Amino acid sequence: MREVAIIGIGMAKWGEIWEKSLRTIFTETALLALDDSGVDHIDSMVVGCMSSGLFIGQEHLASLLADYLGQKPVPAARVESACASGGVALRQGFIEVASGISDIVLVGGVEKMTDVNGHEATYALGTAADQEYEGFHGITFPGLYALMAVAHMHRYGTTREQLAMVAVKNHHNGSFNPLAQYPFEVSVGAVLNSVLVADPLRVLDCSPITDGAAAVVLCPVEMAKKMKKPIIKIIGSGQATDSIALSSREDIAWLESTYQAAKRAYAMAGKKPEDINFFEVHDCFTIAEILVMEALGIVEKGKGGGAVEKGLTALTGKFPVNPSGGLKAKGHPVGATGVAQAVEVVKQLRGEAGKRQIQNAKIGMTQNMGGTGGSTVCHIFERI
Amino acid sequence: MREVAIIGIGMAKWGEIWEKSLRTIFTETALLALDDSGVDHIDSMVVGCMSSGLFIGQEHLASLLADYLGQKPVPAARVESACASGGVALRQGFIEVASGISDIVLVGGVEKMTDVNGHEATYALGTAADQEYEGFHGITFPGLYALMAVAHMHRYGTTREQLAMVAVKNHHNGSFNPLAQYPFEVSVGAVLNSVLVADPLRVLDCSPITDGAAAVVLCPVEMAKKMKKPIIKIIGSGQATDSIALSSREDIAWLESTYQAAKRAYAMAGKKPEDINFFEVHDCFTIAEILVMEALGIVEKGKGGGAVEKGLTALTGKFPVNPSGGLKAKGHPVGATGVAQAVEVVKQLRGEAGKRQIQNAKIGMTQNMGGTGGSTVCHIFERI
Repeated sequence: MREVAIIGIGMAKWGEIWEKSLRTIFTETALLALDDSGVDHIDSMVVGCMSSGLFIGQEHLASLLADYLGQKPVPAARVESACASGGVALRQGFIEVASGISDIVLVGGVEKMTDVNGHEATYALGTAADQEYEGFHGITFPGLYALMAVAHMHRYGTTREQLAMVAVKNHHNGSFNPLAQYPFEVSVGAVLNSVLVADPLRVLDCSPITDGAAAVVLCPVEMAKKMKKPIIKIIGSGQATDSIALSSREDIAWLESTYQAAKRAYAMAGKKPEDINFFEVHDCFTIAEILVMEALGIVEKGKGGGAVEKGLTALTGKFPVNPSGGLKAKGHPVGATGVAQAVEVVKQLRGEAGKRQIQNAKIGMTQNMGGTGGSTVCHIFERI
Repeated sequence: MREVAIIGIGMAKWGEIWEKSLRTIFTETALLALDDSGVDHIDSMVVGCMSSGLFIGQEHLASLLADYLGQKPVPAARVESACASGGVALRQGFIEVASGISDIVLVGGVEKMTDVNGHEATYALGTAADQEYEGFHGITFPGLYALMAVAHMHRYGTTREQLAMVAVKNHHNGSFNPLAQYPFEVSVGAVLNSVLVADPLRVLDCSPITDGAAAVVLCPVEMAKKMKKPIIKIIGSGQATDSIALSSREDIAWLESTYQAAKRAYAMAGKKPEDINFFEVHDCFTIAEILVMEALGIVEKGKGGGAVEKGLTALTGKFPVNPSGGLKAKGHPVGATGVAQAVEVVKQLRGEAGKRQIQNAKIGMTQNMGGTGGSTVCHIFERI
């Protein structure tokens, strides 16, 4: 396998972008990545998108986007793994370059979620759960994560305030990210007093509905070296699945797919959790970030809540988590999220993260998951 | 890149399978492929499916299917390129094995299309066209292919009867395929007198709505050799895109994405059209097969209709096309079609095709496309 580098990144402001359609949002972002990389062509495209079918009535998405980007007839594939679609796209692009079949691959992620109303968006997102065993009974994602939160609180003593502290930290980080949908601070009190969605989760525990895209350009490390640009190498890639239905899990207070994906990524990279300088992870709900910290091995099982309270994962902590603001503050256009995590890691490793810059960051890791953890993709990146 | 072989195939009877859900249809078929291959585990899964979101309200599909197949926590990704989703899945699996990141990869394709009514199915299929420029105006796929047919008839003198002869040939072949949805003969007269759908296309010019799945197991050729089984090697893989909107094409009587994908596959395999013993191609409508023959270089531009009439593509002709019965007789569960083409090629190259066996077949080729040719994937296979 060839070594693979990220040589270009692109992301524009996320939010409710009613004045632009999916194809425009994607194309503008992809052009930023192509411009940043300096390449004059691409050999292939991979696009992560969860449900353009339900959100905008458009499948056959990758061909459409390749055309709008002026790149036909290059091969273009869309990949889907619910909210992990972006991470899977990055992995497919990585494999494609590593294999030698393509040299320069554009990996994009996109979702246009605000062209439908709230009920329709909730239905579309709910298709990431098991429709025959979960959706049929009417449960949606806040409810599923609420079950996981209650189990974690009951078993490990995780507190309602600790959940809130995840949101407070991520909004603090996000306040330094001009591309974030909600770049402002929130307090523990504001989270605790926000509207109840699914007990114990309140609206400020939840990531938002977002329109947005993200893109990266990959090529072999050998080719990147000739371009005399900062080289961010993908040193580890791991993907894993679990039952998408919570009812089929052995333990609903544990993310087995994240544990398995991380194990594979650590093994490929030859790294341990303590070797990683910072993490971008999938905080779709506040409880999710706590569960992820444990599954990644940043803290022991059951210790995630306490670690947040002690500041371990703050921007200046030992293991900064979600310097970008995470899904919580940055927004969560589901198919784009996994790619945007890589964009943040590259910014940090290049030293281009502004007020949220982590000092001396050399190695970063991403964790992107679908549904309640039915799928996870992890990547580890190193500046060389 | 490592050399890649197909060591197992699976396909069950296609049709309107109301008594089983998508997950059951897929799992039964995948088990046939695993059983045929003799492997005791897989390292990864790729699933082609066009729109489980619109057809059954289920995304996050690959994780769900990996779980039902008893394969979690293996990585599993769904890929989508409209009706070329299966072909893209095969290509992704091929790249994954070729890269060295996975040894044994299960590639599946599936679609469950009859859980919705006809209007909903037509809408779902229509999302393979450009929603803002084609769907918005109300045109659906029979109408789009009718435009292509009229252009071809006007420019090259292709006749209404020649279109019918494609259906007659494919139903003749399909009558020997017990897994086909419509395994019976039709006459030219029956096609010409069938219900008009979109002038000049009649219902017997159209592939049907189908429930079904197909699966293949891939591994490195070196590993396959140790298993002492017939080895079908993938010697060429090509993928390409075009505008998905017909209005953006230079020539609506020509399939540029098929031409480009085939050119790449021929180049990788070091083969020319005349080296190929038979073809499985995307006859979603009768006119499509004529256009595909020309774009693959089996005949010159404009000569497709005449070639069918002369029997060039019959089972006993010089270039047999669609020995399986094609989409027309076998059925067209859109995400499964591209994988089912590979299943047929393997059966032919193994000499297991029964009454539709092509004698002395050594090299076969598949062509699978999305929409009106907005994407195409071609593969070339050789028995070694």
